[in-house]
Amino acid sequence: MTTNDAKTLQFPVFHAIAEASRAALMTAGKQRVLGKGDLLCMHGAPLRSVFLVLDGAVRTFRQTPDGKEITVAIAMPGEVVGADALAQPFTQYQWSAAAAEASTVVVEYARDMLRDAVRNDAVLALNLLAQLALQNHYASVDAEQLVHFSAAQRVACFLLRLCALYGLAPAQFTLPFAKGTIASKLGMEVETFSRALAKLKELGVSVKGAEVRMAQVHALECFACGHCSTAEDCATLATLHERCGDAR
Amino acid sequence: MTTNDAKTLQFPVFHAIAEASRAALMTAGKQRVLGKGDLLCMHGAPLRSVFLVLDGAVRTFRQTPDGKEITVAIAMPGEVVGADALAQPFTQYQWSAAAAEASTVVVEYARDMLRDAVRNDAVLALNLLAQLALQNHYASVDAEQLVHFSAAQRVACFLLRLCALYGLAPAQFTLPFAKGTIASKLGMEVETFSRALAKLKELGVSVKGAEVRMAQVHALECFACGHCSTAEDCATLATLHERCGDAR
Repeated sequence: MTTNDAKTLQFPVFHAIAEASRAALMTAGKQRVLGKGDLLCMHGAPLRSVFLVLDGAVRTFRQTPDGKEITVAIAMPGEVVGADALAQPFTQYQWSAAAAEASTVVVEYARDMLRDAVRNDAVLALNLLAQLALQNHYASVDAEQLVHFSAAQRVACFLLRLCALYGLAPAQFTLPFAKGTIASKLGMEVETFSRALAKLKELGVSVKGAEVRMAQVHALECFACGHCSTAEDCATLATLHERCGDAR
Repeated sequence: MTTNDAKTLQFPVFHAIAEASRAALMTAGKQRVLGKGDLLCMHGAPLRSVFLVLDGAVRTFRQTPDGKEITVAIAMPGEVVGADALAQPFTQYQWSAAAAEASTVVVEYARDMLRDAVRNDAVLALNLLAQLALQNHYASVDAEQLVHFSAAQRVACFLLRLCALYGLAPAQFTLPFAKGTIASKLGMEVETFSRALAKLKELGVSVKGAEVRMAQVHALECFACGHCSTAEDCATLATLHERCGDAR
């Protein structure tokens, strides 16, 4: 077993799966190393593969007929890009996918192979269900924020979520994606994103290039989370409280 | 087997499941008939049940600390409200749920019971995965529209989707939910929703009370879908084209 095989099996999506699934996945997975922007698949092309992100990040996106590019999602290590295709009768990709960071590594599985593995292993199916459930939850939070939050509040939530999901220290961390990618994910122009960051300065956020410092996490919580319907049971906040406690 | 048992088993979520799952579901489900607005569960209460919508519709919602009510989703017949909780370690409901229509009927299952059934039946797990995948897909379309569509375009898409999902005839149908519920789902005020409907008049949409007539479906498609990144592979459009053809 290679180092990457071992890493793959440690992701929650493969937690406690059957020995047979494990063996099948190890044999069938094909590792691919990508440079930033390298394409994995094109919207509308025949859907043959799904991709487990091992390192870096994968952005899924579509273009409107008017030529606007829409970021559908940014998948992080451990996420299966195309999990939604395992149970759907799609024959074509519903989005394009490309590496969002340099040195992105994915494991490519034939869709039919992974679907068979899921059909034969309810634990694997439940693990994928958990991934989609979490994505669904955050999608509902994002929709709420698009309606009720200012750009600055949405950026504040994004930065806090980033720290929780990637295990970054709010006091100082490096943005794992380009600002343009983040802006696109948040559905705003890069200029709006920059103005939002400028506004967050008064709440202790300083940004130089890709380096971010958040000196007053508690102030950011009051500013953003204090107006969010999920504040009381937010996984991001729970993680940050556990990690930073009163020091935040 | 009652009529409702037979109806339950015909939903895609129970398609081709194991005989044992089928028997367990029939025994464990508890039917509940609700009046419009009747609560099924409260955000933050201990999560004990999930609900299959049999008739009518169930709205899930949350309140922001500022007192704004956010509609998370409207679940239609065949959808399991709380499917996301089957694979997640939540111990409390992440939303409140209430009947969105008069004479809403649901089947209530203990969460632990349904989770065990899913653990023992990969087909059931895959069916639930398909439901979440579809919700995820529409969530990404909704997010795109919140950023790039006008209120009138979003209402046009919603009306077309309603016809496709409920099998309603675009030429004349009755709104299955109150206008306030639809507006809340679309993240707009009722006044904005009414103005959007007024704007759609020039595209052949007339609304009297809950009665809707869409005389020029093709014009609505140009107006809304013509600017959507999913137009080419939209399930709603495919359904309407198949059903109405050139008559639309």
